[in-house]
Amino acid sequence: MTPFDHLVQLGKEIATLEGISHLLQWDQETLMPQGAAGSRAIQNQLIAKLAHERASGKGFENALSKCIDLNTGKVLLEELNESQKAALREWRDDFLQASKLPTPFIEKFAALTSEATENWRLARQAKSFSRFAPFLERLIEMSRQRAEYLGYQDHPFDALLDEHEKGTTTRKITPLFQALKEELIPFRKSLISKKGPDSSFLHQPYPAASQMKVARALISACGFDPHHGVIGLTSHPFCSSLHPTDVRVSTRIDPKDPSSNWLALLHEGGHWLYEANLPTEHFGTPLCQARSTAVHESQSKWWETLIGQSLPFWTFFYPQVQKSFPKQLGQVPLKTFHRGLNALSDTPIRVSSDEIAYPLHIVLRYDLEKDLISGDLAVRDLPKAWNAKMVEYLQIEPKNDSEGCLQDIHWACGLYGYFPTYTLGNLYAAQFFEAFKKTYPDSEERVAQGDFGFMRSWLKEQVHTHGRKYTSQELVKRITGHALMPDPYLSYLKAKYAAIYAQ
Amino acid sequence: MTPFDHLVQLGKEIATLEGISHLLQWDQETLMPQGAAGSRAIQNQLIAKLAHERASGKGFENALSKCIDLNTGKVLLEELNESQKAALREWRDDFLQASKLPTPFIEKFAALTSEATENWRLARQAKSFSRFAPFLERLIEMSRQRAEYLGYQDHPFDALLDEHEKGTTTRKITPLFQALKEELIPFRKSLISKKGPDSSFLHQPYPAASQMKVARALISACGFDPHHGVIGLTSHPFCSSLHPTDVRVSTRIDPKDPSSNWLALLHEGGHWLYEANLPTEHFGTPLCQARSTAVHESQSKWWETLIGQSLPFWTFFYPQVQKSFPKQLGQVPLKTFHRGLNALSDTPIRVSSDEIAYPLHIVLRYDLEKDLISGDLAVRDLPKAWNAKMVEYLQIEPKNDSEGCLQDIHWACGLYGYFPTYTLGNLYAAQFFEAFKKTYPDSEERVAQGDFGFMRSWLKEQVHTHGRKYTSQELVKRITGHALMPDPYLSYLKAKYAAIYAQ
Repeated sequence: MTPFDHLVQLGKEIATLEGISHLLQWDQETLMPQGAAGSRAIQNQLIAKLAHERASGKGFENALSKCIDLNTGKVLLEELNESQKAALREWRDDFLQASKLPTPFIEKFAALTSEATENWRLARQAKSFSRFAPFLERLIEMSRQRAEYLGYQDHPFDALLDEHEKGTTTRKITPLFQALKEELIPFRKSLISKKGPDSSFLHQPYPAASQMKVARALISACGFDPHHGVIGLTSHPFCSSLHPTDVRVSTRIDPKDPSSNWLALLHEGGHWLYEANLPTEHFGTPLCQARSTAVHESQSKWWETLIGQSLPFWTFFYPQVQKSFPKQLGQVPLKTFHRGLNALSDTPIRVSSDEIAYPLHIVLRYDLEKDLISGDLAVRDLPKAWNAKMVEYLQIEPKNDSEGCLQDIHWACGLYGYFPTYTLGNLYAAQFFEAFKKTYPDSEERVAQGDFGFMRSWLKEQVHTHGRKYTSQELVKRITGHALMPDPYLSYLKAKYAAIYAQ
Repeated sequence: MTPFDHLVQLGKEIATLEGISHLLQWDQETLMPQGAAGSRAIQNQLIAKLAHERASGKGFENALSKCIDLNTGKVLLEELNESQKAALREWRDDFLQASKLPTPFIEKFAALTSEATENWRLARQAKSFSRFAPFLERLIEMSRQRAEYLGYQDHPFDALLDEHEKGTTTRKITPLFQALKEELIPFRKSLISKKGPDSSFLHQPYPAASQMKVARALISACGFDPHHGVIGLTSHPFCSSLHPTDVRVSTRIDPKDPSSNWLALLHEGGHWLYEANLPTEHFGTPLCQARSTAVHESQSKWWETLIGQSLPFWTFFYPQVQKSFPKQLGQVPLKTFHRGLNALSDTPIRVSSDEIAYPLHIVLRYDLEKDLISGDLAVRDLPKAWNAKMVEYLQIEPKNDSEGCLQDIHWACGLYGYFPTYTLGNLYAAQFFEAFKKTYPDSEERVAQGDFGFMRSWLKEQVHTHGRKYTSQELVKRITGHALMPDPYLSYLKAKYAAIYAQ
């Protein structure tokens, strides 16, 4: 066996363990009886340990170092093709990243996040930040330590960003997010000063079974295929891949607002399509792994917002929806439905917010977590800083900490530098979408006729099929000719919402 | 760490892997998309390999041989208690058994059964035994080889029996099964010559949702607790334990015969109760494992037949059932329902047969598989031998091979010596039941009032809580004072069916 084949063999075992770990997670969220929490934790730990042992073990290192120079990154096997060389570079990055964190640190961090998550739940219930503050202190301290282990050039937060979106730094993100703030804060202000669209017809009883019938029709646009997927129900929708041939999504049902279910399922449908389109012949290698969290998010946002909240999409689907809900929507015209679906919201909660508030929520978190890590913001001052920024960015004042800085689980889980990937996903999606529309100037007409296949093929060819062959930066350049920039996203939002709020 | 603690630690890892393997199986049967069969096979193989490596590895052997003499079975650590010593004896048996089969043989056998199962399906579809015969030839040949590896005294089939019910031999089973034949063949003949009970009311539409509502009420008698269990739907009902805190069962729905669902779920409920009652504090050791397939079957048959097809059980539940199905059962009196539920059947299919035909089906398979292994019966002569015995034992002639010797998957899966455990389960159950009724002479009255707790406690105390502390032979002796015998089972069947067919 060649050292490259040996790596592939080890990679397959690791990827298989990861798929099993995703089944454990899927089952835990959808079906597992509550009394099994303890045994499930032990199962999760064992599979994680077995995967980690393989990914950071001597066997992997030996095989890897025969293929690529671990110090310089120079590929040693000239006979490999470009994809294989790219796979080696990604494997090397993963291996070096994994080896930087000492095992006792990982274990201590895991124990802390487990304790912190539990206490975050209690604090959120009690609406009391001070209940959670001591844990956040320790989390920030350990995350600083984490950044030191991982290494960085300018800002310790860069090390954490890099874990979630490789090659991304505060130096790159700050101006992007600054542009969003400068444009979107005043734009949103001007919109909410107007009389918004009516969305009251969405807020009435919609029976769950009929909601799901429509939801399944909608997600078929993303190519969702029950031969290779399952749809479950959870309070927090998610997507979990056991293998490209078995990708599972979940959605939620609000019996008085079907859009929550439908947009969530389109979002997860975008994740589904990415995972299901990964090239199975490279299973076990980085070529059969999604590029990054942010690129993944570009695919979910594509289907949830760019397509799923667009007029052409509903031009095709709305007649079916009206048939399923004649009482609720029979008298509501298509354009009224579409406007209502896009009405801005005044909720202080990120996950329930609207398309313009959402990126501002993310920028707010980015501003704060960056300063928490650098020490420019003290943990005790977080609620005040949060609430001030909520008013500044969104003109919304949280009534309590649970509506404010305690609303998200991410920081309790030890995820710092993760939030930005949500909005980077929006930026990628909008920039990809512009390129797509140049190739298909008639795309809106085709979508309005229920033709989605050409779009799925384009996404597969441009994004999915490459796995991690290209970096995010290379990918956006290949597809659009430019580095990531805020303009396509801003143009999209401004044109769309100016039109919706002009009527 | 003491060597015993080390064994427990290794045992926990093995048991956790087995639990994960059971989740993979559960998911595969209930939820997995069909297109994931290939990736699931790889996941199954990996977990099986990891478990096998641990159970037969040097680490386990070293720790084990410090605790117990692998040659003589003498426990070396006198300070251990009786339960721990029993655990060591069971671990040693498992280890020696596992080491007898060379890995290449196991792999070759697994590959053959996989191919054979596929071809069994095709042969059954085509109703053609000759399509399957070449695979059965090879399976029999390898099973003889298996018996040679495992070792035996009198009959090669003993080695295979021992794998499924330790300590059982043809010398022990043949007279038990002979007694069943001698009594049950003429008894069944005499019954079917009479006008049987009416069961037509069971064969009409029963909506699935209402069937399941009743099914959930019935299985609560077995103690089924949704906090530690899940009920799924599959065409072949089964029970799968991930851990004593997470035991899953499935049932089937025949929209025109609810008894199929209800009795299947009571059967699986018996398995559920055994697994859920195993002592979690011993998880990872044989003390937290069910004794054997046959003893497991005694628990499922207890709830399915001795209780679930009894008049006291339905005295309590039937009024609820009538309320759920007023149209179908409102005019059917309790005793008519109970008789109809126990009507004998003329199907040639084991899984749809009745309480008296069932053991004769098993004896038939035992007779044939024993002779196939010894060479007394040639594979090509199997269909003729099968059909002749069907007529001799049951007065039923299969119309084709699919209704005959191709009806069961077991032999294609490489399971020889497994069928007898079904009827051994009936024998254990009936013998336990006699002892139980001696302790609780008023049990029928209590059951008729919906009191099942005392019965569950008795089963837990007598059977479940011991895990594998006692051998099956010791267990039946402890509980009933006697070795396993046919009389309690025969008395039960004859008294019950004489009464039902006398009316």
